[in-house]
Amino acid sequence: MTGKMMDQPLLISSLIDHAERWHGETEIVSMDTDGTTRVTNWAEVAKRSRRLASCLTSLGLPFEARCATLAWNNRRHLEIYFGVSGAGFVCHTLNPRLHPEQLVYIVKDAQDQVLFFDHTFLPLVAKLQGQLNSVQHFVLMGAYDKEAAAQIDGLKFYDNLLGQSKSDFEWPQLDERSPSSLCYTSGTTGHPKGTLYTHRSTVLHSLGGNQPDGLALSAKDTVLPVVPMFHVNAWGVPYIAASVGSKLVLPGPGLDGESLVRLIDEHHVTIALGVPTIWMNLLEALKTTGSKSKSLTRTVVGGSALPPSMIPTFRDNYGVELIHAWGMTEMSPLGTINQLLQKHQNLPKKEQEELRIGQGRPTFGVNLRIVDENGDVLPNDGHTWGDLQVKGLWVIDTYMGLEETALTQDGWFDTGDVATISSDGYLVIRDRSKDIIKSGGEWISTVELENIAIGHPSIANAAAIAAQHEKWGERPVLIAVKSSDVSESDLIAFYDGKVASWQVPDRVVFVDALPLGATGKVTKIQLREMFGGILEEKN
Amino acid sequence: MTGKMMDQPLLISSLIDHAERWHGETEIVSMDTDGTTRVTNWAEVAKRSRRLASCLTSLGLPFEARCATLAWNNRRHLEIYFGVSGAGFVCHTLNPRLHPEQLVYIVKDAQDQVLFFDHTFLPLVAKLQGQLNSVQHFVLMGAYDKEAAAQIDGLKFYDNLLGQSKSDFEWPQLDERSPSSLCYTSGTTGHPKGTLYTHRSTVLHSLGGNQPDGLALSAKDTVLPVVPMFHVNAWGVPYIAASVGSKLVLPGPGLDGESLVRLIDEHHVTIALGVPTIWMNLLEALKTTGSKSKSLTRTVVGGSALPPSMIPTFRDNYGVELIHAWGMTEMSPLGTINQLLQKHQNLPKKEQEELRIGQGRPTFGVNLRIVDENGDVLPNDGHTWGDLQVKGLWVIDTYMGLEETALTQDGWFDTGDVATISSDGYLVIRDRSKDIIKSGGEWISTVELENIAIGHPSIANAAAIAAQHEKWGERPVLIAVKSSDVSESDLIAFYDGKVASWQVPDRVVFVDALPLGATGKVTKIQLREMFGGILEEKN
Repeated sequence: MTGKMMDQPLLISSLIDHAERWHGETEIVSMDTDGTTRVTNWAEVAKRSRRLASCLTSLGLPFEARCATLAWNNRRHLEIYFGVSGAGFVCHTLNPRLHPEQLVYIVKDAQDQVLFFDHTFLPLVAKLQGQLNSVQHFVLMGAYDKEAAAQIDGLKFYDNLLGQSKSDFEWPQLDERSPSSLCYTSGTTGHPKGTLYTHRSTVLHSLGGNQPDGLALSAKDTVLPVVPMFHVNAWGVPYIAASVGSKLVLPGPGLDGESLVRLIDEHHVTIALGVPTIWMNLLEALKTTGSKSKSLTRTVVGGSALPPSMIPTFRDNYGVELIHAWGMTEMSPLGTINQLLQKHQNLPKKEQEELRIGQGRPTFGVNLRIVDENGDVLPNDGHTWGDLQVKGLWVIDTYMGLEETALTQDGWFDTGDVATISSDGYLVIRDRSKDIIKSGGEWISTVELENIAIGHPSIANAAAIAAQHEKWGERPVLIAVKSSDVSESDLIAFYDGKVASWQVPDRVVFVDALPLGATGKVTKIQLREMFGGILEEKN
Repeated sequence: MTGKMMDQPLLISSLIDHAERWHGETEIVSMDTDGTTRVTNWAEVAKRSRRLASCLTSLGLPFEARCATLAWNNRRHLEIYFGVSGAGFVCHTLNPRLHPEQLVYIVKDAQDQVLFFDHTFLPLVAKLQGQLNSVQHFVLMGAYDKEAAAQIDGLKFYDNLLGQSKSDFEWPQLDERSPSSLCYTSGTTGHPKGTLYTHRSTVLHSLGGNQPDGLALSAKDTVLPVVPMFHVNAWGVPYIAASVGSKLVLPGPGLDGESLVRLIDEHHVTIALGVPTIWMNLLEALKTTGSKSKSLTRTVVGGSALPPSMIPTFRDNYGVELIHAWGMTEMSPLGTINQLLQKHQNLPKKEQEELRIGQGRPTFGVNLRIVDENGDVLPNDGHTWGDLQVKGLWVIDTYMGLEETALTQDGWFDTGDVATISSDGYLVIRDRSKDIIKSGGEWISTVELENIAIGHPSIANAAAIAAQHEKWGERPVLIAVKSSDVSESDLIAFYDGKVASWQVPDRVVFVDALPLGATGKVTKIQLREMFGGILEEKN
């Protein structure tokens, strides 16, 4: 006996179908790459994504062919999200900030057969075309452009392709475990590796990640995903917005503070999502422009540690709730989101802020645990540090192209983070396990040291690293960028009372800028190469 | 190539696992059948549901055995929901208000092997035991009771069973398409029929039905499900509450207005769910007790048409948002929920009310259409009436025990309702297709006529029916219950300007009470038998 309910697969095409049918007139505002603002809607996006699907199918691509994108957040990229996956191909978003060599490696590893790209990236693609051997179809995301056509042999033009396509395409009924999309980790060590999402994992991520204590997007929202669509599916926002009929504002290439303030005010954005740097720039621009961002009610922040002052600044000056979320490429990406429980509702603001600064709690569909070096599970007591492992409906099993599972023997994925989990289930990421400083048997969080440094009025940015030490094995050294004058001893004194004395950095080195990787994170590996020996030299 | 994500089945046991692990201390308040209030929590409910699962497994029940309940909303019933389904058996909630003959029929049809019952229903079960031949284990939901033991041979006692059970039970990894639960339609015509839900449909219903524009329960909520757990899984609330960690207040047998006011105020309930009659009684009790139900922010109403004054009464007097939802047993039950779109946010209150009085819009996972008598799809224009058909992730395919699918040839489920759908996707149920009055080729909604009648200050309740008419085929006749004096001609005059003149009832018949079915709905079949010939007699 099996149950007697309808058996419909969980498909990405069903998300865009729903948006077309029930939210067809809801607007999608797109900052196109040519600088124009284009207003379309879910019905039009759906129609064009079906046209695209029809095109790709008639190109004779094999089922599950990878179609890559090098593109900003705009309407064509949105159509590609749905058209490629809906037709049974794999939407592979490339990060244009990667080193060209890495791009070539990734395209080859993924065996991408189509490459869609915005005009911005024409020079890059023209330069690399000879090395992208798997790519059979280069498609410029725009209308015919003579100059571009001259640069790439057989170049296709997105708008022309769609113009010639049939409008009566019907989405195939795929197996819900078919691959739908692909995203590579930035790969600070070793080669980048691809996470191959399925239709099922993507739809479940949309449903599970958008519960009221999750992202909580609705048909009442106008959503500004500042997080790039090439960065883990823009945290799932395009899919979720389709499933609930949110209005979208796609910001294109202009992600500076002033542009964002203008978009928020012009289009009455209610919720925006991005990394901390984006919000620092936005807060700065709000000050200079004098905007009160009246429509904005929430911002979601993730991707790196949260400066402690950001929550009260947003709340007290702009009436905006800053919500901290955590995830990773291998998790589609949503892992945890920081919402208060009922029992916290009447806590003083200060205590609420302390809770909300961490990474938050898992939604249904995700499970977390911390383990010691033997893999034994550690208690959720808020002070025991352990390696963070995850499990769930939208968590990776095996990287693309590899034989061996990425999981532990008992089926968990090791995140590479060191974390604590409180008895109420609040996760706090303490550090990356490869960054953490092991000093005389005790662990020191580089993240914590950095957050304190950034709290100093004269420090613009900082990274803490482990430097080799004869006696203690490792000791913390801080690499900092000044915004105004401050001395090494002043900054070291600034740690007094904020951490235990043995956690205070031994040295501060001032630099002009920190080295950044493709996703905007500080590359500590490089800093350790430069400054890891600094304490030994001194001795 | 298949995608490379973890493959975990969608199981009811994963809902209670999540609640135990991440919301273990969140309280469940239970009005037990013996009149005591018992406060437990999700961890305890989870533990006891595992103990129950262990018991049932060691009784040697076959996989997928049906375990029935005759019970109020209380903690033991909650444990049975998770314990029975989690172990791989089918939780079959019986409606104790059904006629005993129907109960006997349903138990036989379902082949229930276990019957759990609250002490309230001991006399009923004792009387029927000889006819419930499939039942091998009668279990009283409480501790040992000598008097009860004397009435039913081999009677088992829930608390004693759990006391003897093992605590180390581990949930089996079932196929997500295994049956999890069973609910029979009330069956106004023909025999009652069973909808057999699956683990997959139940988990997807929880995720899809609880989006921000859906029920939107969260860990900040204290939820009072007044809708019975024997009535389509209490609209999914037990499952959803577990998945998001809401606090639950289970009201037991006392569903009168005063009891509900007391529960809301004592336990700071934020959201309550039930049928219109419940809210009429609650509003009455709020008046007499003088409570302002301060904690309450939302009430969800469904199950029958909404009296138009209820939305402004809740809003203006108590600051409570009344949310209209619609569904049916065959839909798990959530079909639509009435939330405003972004473009409606600034409409005047009155216009918002007019939109919100209808059944609302479908959430992702449900699709709707209206069709004519040939099955051709009709437009969503807000004024074309058609037969309402549905499709979706938690919609029935085939009734239990039947060979033939319940669907149309092209895979839709016909709801038996006549409805309109607006261009914005708002569903308005106009009538049951079997109730609608077909007068000279035009259709007249009995629901609309009833709503107008109930709006008259002297009318307590009313039902409109089709009476046979020589010339017009059918004409409307109103059967009404007075609350104070009013004449037939006064009431007929009350329709002036509210409907077209040809829609005004030909006659009004006053009665002392309307006949009600097991789910509290007026049985119009009986009224038509009594009054269907009234116009012909007159001629």
